[in-house]
Formats: sequence, C-alpha cells, structure tokens
Amino acid sequence: NSGAFQQVRFTLNSTLRPVEVAHLLEKSPPKERQILWNLIHPENEGKVLQYLADDIQADILSKMDADRLLAITETLDTDDVADVLQQLPERITRELLQIMDQQNRERIEEILAYPEDTAGGLMNTDTVTIRPDITVETCLRYIRRHNEIPEMTDSLFVVSRKKNSYIGTLPLTKLLVSDPEITIREIMNTDIKPIPADMPDDKVASLFEKHDLVSAPVINKSGKLLGRITIDDVVDVIREDADHSLMSMAGLDEDEDTFAPLLKTTRRRAVWLGINLLTALLASSVIGLFQDTIDKVVALAVLMPIVASMGGIAGSQTLTLMIRGQALGHVERSNARWLLNRELLVSLLNGIIWAGVVAAVSMVWFSSQTIGIVIGLAIVINLIVGALAGTLLPLVLKAWGIDPALAGSVLLTTITDVVGFFAFLGLATYFYG
Amino acid sequence: NSGAFQQVRFTLNSTLRPVEVAHLLEKSPPKERQILWNLIHPENEGKVLQYLADDIQADILSKMDADRLLAITETLDTDDVADVLQQLPERITRELLQIMDQQNRERIEEILAYPEDTAGGLMNTDTVTIRPDITVETCLRYIRRHNEIPEMTDSLFVVSRKKNSYIGTLPLTKLLVSDPEITIREIMNTDIKPIPADMPDDKVASLFEKHDLVSAPVINKSGKLLGRITIDDVVDVIREDADHSLMSMAGLDEDEDTFAPLLKTTRRRAVWLGINLLTALLASSVIGLFQDTIDKVVALAVLMPIVASMGGIAGSQTLTLMIRGQALGHVERSNARWLLNRELLVSLLNGIIWAGVVAAVSMVWFSSQTIGIVIGLAIVINLIVGALAGTLLPLVLKAWGIDPALAGSVLLTTITDVVGFFAFLGLATYFYG
Repeated sequence: NSGAFQQVRFTLNSTLRPVEVAHLLEKSPPKERQILWNLIHPENEGKVLQYLADDIQADILSKMDADRLLAITETLDTDDVADVLQQLPERITRELLQIMDQQNRERIEEILAYPEDTAGGLMNTDTVTIRPDITVETCLRYIRRHNEIPEMTDSLFVVSRKKNSYIGTLPLTKLLVSDPEITIREIMNTDIKPIPADMPDDKVASLFEKHDLVSAPVINKSGKLLGRITIDDVVDVIREDADHSLMSMAGLDEDEDTFAPLLKTTRRRAVWLGINLLTALLASSVIGLFQDTIDKVVALAVLMPIVASMGGIAGSQTLTLMIRGQALGHVERSNARWLLNRELLVSLLNGIIWAGVVAAVSMVWFSSQTIGIVIGLAIVINLIVGALAGTLLPLVLKAWGIDPALAGSVLLTTITDVVGFFAFLGLATYFYG
Repeated sequence: NSGAFQQVRFTLNSTLRPVEVAHLLEKSPPKERQILWNLIHPENEGKVLQYLADDIQADILSKMDADRLLAITETLDTDDVADVLQQLPERITRELLQIMDQQNRERIEEILAYPEDTAGGLMNTDTVTIRPDITVETCLRYIRRHNEIPEMTDSLFVVSRKKNSYIGTLPLTKLLVSDPEITIREIMNTDIKPIPADMPDDKVASLFEKHDLVSAPVINKSGKLLGRITIDDVVDVIREDADHSLMSMAGLDEDEDTFAPLLKTTRRRAVWLGINLLTALLASSVIGLFQDTIDKVVALAVLMPIVASMGGIAGSQTLTLMIRGQALGHVERSNARWLLNRELLVSLLNGIIWAGVVAAVSMVWFSSQTIGIVIGLAIVINLIVGALAGTLLPLVLKAWGIDPALAGSVLLTTITDVVGFFAFLGLATYFYG
C-alpha cells in the first residue's frame, strides 16, 4: 500500500501538470480529495490551488495556518496571490500582507484594491514594456537580454518614460516583420483602447471576443499601465458566466463543488426547497378556494396539473431564451417590445393548437363537452400568461438589480401555477356553477 | 431619411468592426436585420457573416445565388469558407467547389472532409512553418521577409523538409530571447502533442484550457501538418458547449436565434410542448386512478401539487449538478456511487425537514392528522425518487448516447409527477380506504 502511495505521489508531483492535478481533486469526493492533497509537495501546492474552483480553494485555505499560507504565496504570480487572498477572511489577509516583503505587499495591495470581478482583479503585473522612441533593432536587442518572456505574451506595451503612462501596443508579429531602423512609435498599435482597472469582468470578456485579443493592457484612472489581462483568465470568466445561468435557474451556485460534503449541500438545497414550498403552498391555497367545485366535478382534479404544467413549460422556454439573450447582450429596451409580441403570438398559436388537442382528449375521457371547453380556454390563458411572465420578468428583475437567472424560474412557476389553477377552476365554477 | 440611411451605411461599413456588425444583426428583429444586411458593402459581407450564429448564417446564405456566394468565399480565410459551406445544402456546396480555382478547392475539401465539430473543422490553414535545421538568425531573417504574419500567431511550427511532417513548436517568445547561432531543433518545444484532425472539439477545448494554449498544430493520420487551431475559435466552442446545457434543458437549441421569426419559433416550441403534454397526461392518468379517494377527501386535490412540485425541484437540482459535472468532466463511473449516496442522503434529510413542515401545515389547515402523515410520507418518498432519478438519468442517458441536458428534464418531471401523485394518493387510499 505504501508503494501505491509512492506511485500516486510521484504522479501528482512529477507526471501531471498542476491544472491536471486540480481537475483530479475537483472530481474526487472529500475524503479522497484530502488524501490526494496531502500527497502534493509543498512547492506545488500553490500552483495546484490557483486552478481549483473558488469553493474548494476556500475550503483548503481555511485549514492552513499563516506560515503555510505565506509559503504558498511565495510560489505564485502576483495576480494569483491576490486571487488566493480574496478567498481568505480579511483578518488573515491583513496578517499575511504584514509579514510579506514590501515590494510584494505593494503590488498585491494594488490588485486587492479592485474587486475580483473587475479588470483589476483579473490582471497580472508581468508586462514587458518598451519606450516609444527606440528603434525596432534596439527593441529586439533589449528583449534578447531577457532570459525568458512571460507566457501568453503576444504584445509588448509601449509606455512613456516619465509616468509609465500607456501609449500603445506592439504585437510581436509586427515587431518581427518590421524594418530594424524604424521607431516603435511608427509601428505600434493605438487602435485598441487600454482597459480601465474598474471595468467589470464580463465587459472585459466581450472586448476580448470582439477584438480577438490574446492579452490587453490595464490602466488606472490617470492612464498609468498597471498590468495586463490574458486570454486564459478571460476564458474562465466566459465559462463561469455561462455556467451561472444554468446553475442559478436550479437554485445552485456556479462555484458549487460537485462533491461538496453532505451537510453543506443539504443546507444550501434546503433553502431553495423552502422557497419553492412557499410557491407550492400559494398554488394549493388557490385550489383550496375551489374545493366545492372539485367536490362536484372530480375530473377537474385529474386535469388541473396539465394546465399548470403547459403554462410552466411554455413560460420556461421564453424565460430561458430571454436570460440567454440578456447574457449575450441581445435583449435591450429597444427590441423588448418585438420579443414580447412574438412570444405572445407564439403562445397564442401553440395555445390554440394544444388547447384543441387537450380539449378533445378531455371530452372523450370524461364524456363532457363543458370540461373540454374549460380546459381549452384555461390552457390558452395560461400559455399567454407564461409568455408575458417569461418576457417581462427578466426585464423587470434586471432593472431592479435582481439576478433573473436566480429569481426568474421560481417567480415564473408561481405565476403559471397560480394563474393556471385559478383560470381552470374559476372557469369550471362559472360553467358548472 | 436617405441621409439617415447614408449615415447607417457608413457606420456599418467604416466605423464598426465586422464582429460588431454581426452582433448588431444578431440583436435585431428580422425586418431590421434584413434592412441592415442590405446596407453592408459586398466586400464586407463575408467578414460579417463568419461572426453570425449558425442559424442566422444559414438563413442569410439560403437567400443568395451561387455567384454571390462565390464572391463572398473569395473574401474569407479557408477555414471560414469551410464553415460557411457547411451551412449550405450539399448540392450548392458541390456547385460552388466546382467553380472555385483548384488550389482553393483542394484546401477547402481537406477541411470539409472533417465534421464541423472536430479539430479538422475548427482549423485554419494559415500556419507559418520553418525547418528544424536552420539557425535562429536565419529564421528571423526568413520571417522578416513576410509582409505580415497571420493574427493569433504566437508560435511557428517546425516541419520536416520531405513530407511536411510536424516536428515541434517554436513560441515567438522563445525565438526572441534565443542565441542567434543556435538551431531551431535545439530550442523548439516538443512537449505538447499535435492535435489529430478527428479529435472532437470539446476535447480540443479542454486541451487549450489545460495547457493555456493560444494556438496549436493539427495533423492528419500520417503526421502531416494540416493547419492550426486558434484560441478565438476555441472560445466559441466553450461558449456554445456551456450554452448547450442551459438551452437544452428548456428544449431549445444553443444556436437558436433570439429573434427567430414567428412561425419558425412556434413550430420548434410546439414539439417541446407536445412532448411535455404527454408527460402531463401520464400524470393525470395516475390521478385518474384515484378519483374515488379524491371524491371522498377533496383536500387531497388541494395538496397533491405540493408533493409533485417538491420532488421535481429537488430532482432538478440533482440533475443540473450532474449535467454540469458531466460537462466539466467531473462525473465518472468511479465517483457516481459517492454522488448517488450523497444525493440520497441530502434528499432524505431535506425530505424529513420539509415533510415535517408540510405535514404540520396540512394538519392545521384541514384539521386532520391522517392527511399530515400521508403528505409527509409522500414527500419523503418523492424527494428520494427525485434524487435517484436526478443522479441516474444523466448517467444512463449518456451511456445510451442520448443528450442528458435535452431528455433529462422531461423524463425527470415525468418520474417525480407520476411517483408523487401515486405515492400521495395511494397512501391516502390506504389510510382512508
């Protein structure tokens, strides 16, 4: 068994890359994860840590003392240290910063000044900078003096001599094909605006997608170059944003650890079940209003879930389309009316088609024309209400600063359940009353 | 008005980048989209087209004749031409290939030989290649002879003189810091394996994420360099994969045009509603079995949606977590049992908590202890079934080659509805019978 451990230890520290070890930890249940973590050499811990999902990172960090934390931060790039510190309680962060050497502390405090979900929080400080007035030849000679250039460097940044102000970008591909005699100023790129450090990370991501960037300069308010953002960090933002809608619609967090321990999971899920229980109780109380009618016509109890379910499904389709449209930046005030109209018409058409089918089935099943008419009308009403709610909820919630992906689905189901039961049983009471 | 048109035409063709024009088209309803498209200069059409979502691209292409299509393909890179051709009916693709010049045709046929969702379908042919036996200095001189190097070139590919076989990769950053006298063979990178052209695109994406790549070489079966994949195309794959789960769970397609016209949308949605109607009818038929019991105790009709809803919500959380876990590569046969156990325990614990609450509410509401016991037991049963279905469905569906994101949610709701109603009404029949 000790031989097997040696084997695993060797694989973790010598065969696999840190990102692969992180993936292995992420797909391991808690006990195995702890065993694997303990087999990682201290000098590799930091590298592995930075690739772990936030949830798991925070969990591992919370078990370390300050000395161990400090040792880890010494193996990492500045931006990654900042990421790690952001997972820690503020008291411990301050303690750590105090025992760091001054240069490191200043750099990290600069990054920590910006929230994690801004350009400043994403950036790294490993830029290669040059002056605008040197020639291509001088620039090439200057670069050759480096032992190595940081990974993901596709461009050098041109800065002023005095205040380190950002002036332009010089792609390596341009440097390589330019006349050696020419100055950097003549060939540098000034098309792409530098990124202000307080820009939200989703805006950064769309800039990268729009301009097919590999790296981009980040500046502070006075135009000083602070660092750069690289595409690998942007890819993480894109993936997390996309996961956010999926997970939120089920009341889950996008950082959620697939293998979170039992009690933590139970607690989180309990809240979501509780919220949805309120919804269900509201729907039940609507049904409660019509007990006399159901007592008279028991078929109503048999058919009523169909009305609620059809409205919920149609509404969810609209809601999902809207939430994705908002995430992609497609949905705006100017085209919301067009979408609302189309969704209403889609629901009207599909309402008529499927209301007809359900009405026919119900008439045959319960040998009653009235019940067919009642359920048909109720389905058309509920599908239209589903389209209304599915279109308007995301717009209203976003305007109120509430996340539509998180609150939208609960509210939508509440509306389609309540309206569905009310319309169906209300119409039945009218017809059978 | 004509002045306004001139203004828009100028903005579309001179101010905005093609990717921004594409985004503008994507967020415009059909009529505005058509007007905007007509204002784009023919020489810009191709560039804009390649950034459009597949659905919209296919729609626009379907309205063009062969001459216009040929003109467009002449303004595009080979891989983008291949992408466009893949949106066209095969008859038209063949026609177009016949009127192209031979060199273009051969290149494009090479790409078209690979499905769109493989490395071959993603790749571009604009590689810069060098021989292993030249020196760094010769290499730099050779590169300076280019007028420009293709965008996103972070590496040169080293190939054999004879068969153009891939040998290694030379990052530009390494080229720039290396001794001019040294040969390429001594400094090239052979760590990263070249990508076989038939590798699925999601595998390509995880390779890029794992190794923080900007570009990577693609080879055929005999090791010949065919082209390269760049991170911008990989980002599209990542975004589409992430969108896929969200959209599929609502029965939508990830390529779905937010502003698809009325009839197209109605037709697609009708199918999904129809499938869900079958589910609802099945649930209703279960209720139908217990009409006598409901007739005796009408409170059952009031409370029964709660049981189905709680099971559905709990099951959806498990299902979403599993589907995301599968997408991230976290869920495997080896850890599925751990997940199943945890999900069952979560449901048991939450079942006991919320069953207690619902039981108490029901007892007070209907002044009956029996109804409280019945609904409490039914909720615990349905939550456990929800956890079972939410965990096992994605595993089974995936093993059968069915997309869990698409089929999972319908099947899950069917199960939690049927079991919920059956358990609740069945227990009631037993207790009240």
